[in-house]
Amino acid sequence: MFAEKSLREFVDMVASSSPTPGGGAVGAYAAALGSALLEMVANLTLGKKGYENKEAEMEAIVEKMKLEREKFLSLIDKDVKAFDEVMRALKMPKNTEEEKKRRSEQLQRALKEAADVPYELMRLTVGIIEDVPFLYKYGNKNAISDVESACEMLKSAFYIGKANVEINLKSIRDEEYVEKMKQEMEELEGKLKYCLESINEEKV
Amino acid sequence: MFAEKSLREFVDMVASSSPTPGGGAVGAYAAALGSALLEMVANLTLGKKGYENKEAEMEAIVEKMKLEREKFLSLIDKDVKAFDEVMRALKMPKNTEEEKKRRSEQLQRALKEAADVPYELMRLTVGIIEDVPFLYKYGNKNAISDVESACEMLKSAFYIGKANVEINLKSIRDEEYVEKMKQEMEELEGKLKYCLESINEEKV
Repeated sequence: MFAEKSLREFVDMVASSSPTPGGGAVGAYAAALGSALLEMVANLTLGKKGYENKEAEMEAIVEKMKLEREKFLSLIDKDVKAFDEVMRALKMPKNTEEEKKRRSEQLQRALKEAADVPYELMRLTVGIIEDVPFLYKYGNKNAISDVESACEMLKSAFYIGKANVEINLKSIRDEEYVEKMKQEMEELEGKLKYCLESINEEKV
Repeated sequence: MFAEKSLREFVDMVASSSPTPGGGAVGAYAAALGSALLEMVANLTLGKKGYENKEAEMEAIVEKMKLEREKFLSLIDKDVKAFDEVMRALKMPKNTEEEKKRRSEQLQRALKEAADVPYELMRLTVGIIEDVPFLYKYGNKNAISDVESACEMLKSAFYIGKANVEINLKSIRDEEYVEKMKQEMEELEGKLKYCLESINEEKV
């Protein structure tokens, strides 16, 4: 698992001339870091004087973030695997009509999988950002810059997911699938923007 | 060094109830990931058919990103150390006037250091984002989502830096220092926005 690589090994692998791990994998780790920061803020709020009335919610956030963090870590591997499948399909022979057909079918399947993974990143990220307004309002005020940092990482992860879905959609021929994905992404972006607005309201 | 921790260990440490590593450390790693993605895009462009006329620039980008990446990795440790110093100063005794004075002086020094590190993150990040428009225009078109992903990570790192400078400025009494920092941050943000605009122009 990529989660077992060191921070240095991971940036080295990203930087190399191999296309994986690439943007999608980085986005998944960004989301893991964002959710970890929110977990820290909830932890820094628990048991602190003046913050007693939201203990149950803070505990729930800690539990939730722990679970989600694990999902984001496994998305790193899923993203790399999905992209490697696309590369594998692209290298299949295409000399005969039969070979061309097989290659094309394999590629289309791989492209959908390569779009589904960053879409999942977008979906999970929105599910985390939903807790940001609450932590702004009721979290330890000394950790407010950590809530902001988490929000930045999660926004980043969301838009990295979007860029990676979109680049794959360009080569997918199943129009129904493409249309459905576009609609669902738009819905998710609506939810994201709604959360970000609530955060700005809490800030004032 | 934090760079030797695994991705999983690092998120675990971020998530824990200890305030370090926190947002600043996460922002520094985000910048390392962003610069690594740009390095990958330059690597994926080098030696590719149709991209021969910018080889020298691409090689220069690879070299630059390698160096900058290392700076970002060491900023993780610097951020943690600076914040730990603030915590240490806060725990100093304040029973006598003399103790109060010593504690206050120590705290003010520590706060400046804790503001200087994320400011350095902002400065270095802008120095990297400056290469994004070029990679958009001349980089391997198949890696365009990686340029976008890099840009997201770097923007995020920049604003995380800003949030972390600002929270420290609130407690710094040296008005001249605070004013200077605010002005310099504004200049940097101007440069960042200019880069982001150039990117949007390349996109169209």
